Amino acid sequence: MTLDRITTITAVGGGVTAPAGFRAAGVACGIKASGKLDLSLLVSDRAASAAGVFTTNLAQAAPVVLSRQHLERSAGTGRAVVINSGCANACTGADGRDHARLMADYTAAALGCGAADVLVASTGVIGVKLDIAKVERGVKDAASRLSPAGGADAARAIMTTDPFPKESSIEVAVKGGSFRVGGMAKGSGMIEPLMATMLGVVSTDAAVEPGLLARALKAAAADTFNAITVDGECSTNDCVFVLANGASGVELTESDFPLLVGSLKAACEPLAIGIVRGGEGATKLITVHVTGAASEADARRAARAIANSPLVKTAVHGADPNWGRLIAVAGRSGSAFVLDRAVVRIGPVTLFSDGTPYDDRAPEAEAYLQGTDVTLEVDLGTGSAGESRMWTCDLSAEYVRINAEYRT
Amino acid sequence: MTLDRITTITAVGGGVTAPAGFRAAGVACGIKASGKLDLSLLVSDRAASAAGVFTTNLAQAAPVVLSRQHLERSAGTGRAVVINSGCANACTGADGRDHARLMADYTAAALGCGAADVLVASTGVIGVKLDIAKVERGVKDAASRLSPAGGADAARAIMTTDPFPKESSIEVAVKGGSFRVGGMAKGSGMIEPLMATMLGVVSTDAAVEPGLLARALKAAAADTFNAITVDGECSTNDCVFVLANGASGVELTESDFPLLVGSLKAACEPLAIGIVRGGEGATKLITVHVTGAASEADARRAARAIANSPLVKTAVHGADPNWGRLIAVAGRSGSAFVLDRAVVRIGPVTLFSDGTPYDDRAPEAEAYLQGTDVTLEVDLGTGSAGESRMWTCDLSAEYVRINAEYRT
Repeated sequence: MTLDRITTITAVGGGVTAPAGFRAAGVACGIKASGKLDLSLLVSDRAASAAGVFTTNLAQAAPVVLSRQHLERSAGTGRAVVINSGCANACTGADGRDHARLMADYTAAALGCGAADVLVASTGVIGVKLDIAKVERGVKDAASRLSPAGGADAARAIMTTDPFPKESSIEVAVKGGSFRVGGMAKGSGMIEPLMATMLGVVSTDAAVEPGLLARALKAAAADTFNAITVDGECSTNDCVFVLANGASGVELTESDFPLLVGSLKAACEPLAIGIVRGGEGATKLITVHVTGAASEADARRAARAIANSPLVKTAVHGADPNWGRLIAVAGRSGSAFVLDRAVVRIGPVTLFSDGTPYDDRAPEAEAYLQGTDVTLEVDLGTGSAGESRMWTCDLSAEYVRINAEYRT
Repeated sequence: MTLDRITTITAVGGGVTAPAGFRAAGVACGIKASGKLDLSLLVSDRAASAAGVFTTNLAQAAPVVLSRQHLERSAGTGRAVVINSGCANACTGADGRDHARLMADYTAAALGCGAADVLVASTGVIGVKLDIAKVERGVKDAASRLSPAGGADAARAIMTTDPFPKESSIEVAVKGGSFRVGGMAKGSGMIEPLMATMLGVVSTDAAVEPGLLARALKAAAADTFNAITVDGECSTNDCVFVLANGASGVELTESDFPLLVGSLKAACEPLAIGIVRGGEGATKLITVHVTGAASEADARRAARAIANSPLVKTAVHGADPNWGRLIAVAGRSGSAFVLDRAVVRIGPVTLFSDGTPYDDRAPEAEAYLQGTDVTLEVDLGTGSAGESRMWTCDLSAEYVRINAEYRT
């Protein structure tokens, strides 16, 4: 990928309100019994191109279905994203569909735009009805508090079991100007987005035509949000939205596709990694790097299997350099694999190659695994056509505690 | 399946030595540092038909490769199965292949049979070399202790992290006689056998031609050992062997295929369920029953996804009637699924149907989940062509503790 128009990418503050022409707010409307922020609103001051990627789960929540319809009806334009946390509005039947629609209607009324210009998302417990009266009050409250400094509150208001908010924002300097990309995301459990992604919102003040924006978001998500897993669970509510309002004066066209994807990836990658780092019960961020695969698809399949393996994740949790489990997962992953040419590395330590174990190096690998950021590399021994990187976290007793007690 | 020749199936004692003409022993040869039994030997007094099903993992352990070769070379006959626990002899290179071969040679020498009549298996840590001198002593010791009452010791000697031994034995009364089927199995973690199965040994004193025996074992394994999962991990060493020595005088031929499969299933099902009940950290046995699927394959795929879902398994662990997680997994499983026609039941309690949640019934479902044997049923809402049953266990903090500390 060539990013020849980029001069520099610089991290800036502000999250989703870092780009020009965006305001946001996060308020507490009482959906969460704790009284924490639970309604988030992001608004572009002018009409923006809009795109989304959505869960591939067949049990799609009402807001997912509605937002898809709105993007279609508006031909890829939009003004606002409204999100509640604490209730997923999933598996809620006809009432749920009404509630999602009303949530968009209230927002459109407060902003003076059309309902199809509002994208809606919900996150929280499945199968519980949304208290739509609370949402109505929350939307009015949030609309009255919109601010160019509201990104941080907006990011807090979409959290559920997340231990910390996930925000990112960058400035991309190009010939003749600069533009910004901001983002926020949530997610901690039920995370393996697959061909879709988590709850995330990306804003940019570049001008991008809707079709191009949609393709770029899909490409950026593939290597960021779709390259993470916490527990192999693809939720009913996963989605990522992007709004591009052109307020920077920089226009990106078809020939800038690599630049656009690169910029979106630069904003999305820290959000995706943040989700994993804040995964339920996580104490370590694990980068799984698969090389020597027969194809990209084989590499991704093996990386995904390793990243979802409870035996690998518990071994890393215990700083146990149990490389045999990496071999076992690679061998069962469905990807081509040649044992006698395979290599396993834990950090810089090669523990298996040419069919031979190097168990004397286990103490060195064990010391490496004491760290909080670890890399596991498996060469499948089948060539050099494919490689893939995925991010996951360790599996701890705390994950079990959180999920055995989440609802009741 | 018609089992018209069966008069009755009766449970009997004795495990793998319940059928006539089998002797077994389990000894401690020092592979396990704990001094526990670690070498198991099962011998048929006469030549027997033999068959096996093996792991589909591409990283196959040396004994798996060798036993496949022996079955081929002997054209499906055999005399003995020798198994060590405490070391998997997997990922051990050329030395490992030599050790597996020597293990068969020592056994053949002690019994006075050909090496190809000996099936070999190993189970334990991956990537550690087998102490073949200990195996040699163990084989001699076991051969000297063979007994028609040795089934119990043999079953103990194949355990690793298993909390209890798994044995079963039945007597099948048919017109004009009766025969017995006995079995033993081990397994607690790295359990999702897939198209293969766990370490298990089945013996029968029926006479069965090798090709028929192999097909019957495969069919029986599909609904028993291949219908269980503890942690979604298919190991490098999974295999199940069956020896049929004809000592009962009952011969089963092609027309008795349903009877043969039914008898093998009757012996294998309690072993498979025993593996799950003794799964690492397990406190509950979960039966996942998927109905209303578009095909058998869809039913099995959805059942497997539910049985491997950490969110479902932790919810059951916490007796949380979190039916939304069952919907979410069914929806992401890759099987056809229609939300508005789907039904979720926890035990006898229907919590979701016709697109509507029945959360007022949650307390009843929660009380049911306090039990140690629970059934989860999901109707995928796509017809009545397929259904499937799988067994799994809950996911506890103890699973994490066991696997974070297993090796080091």
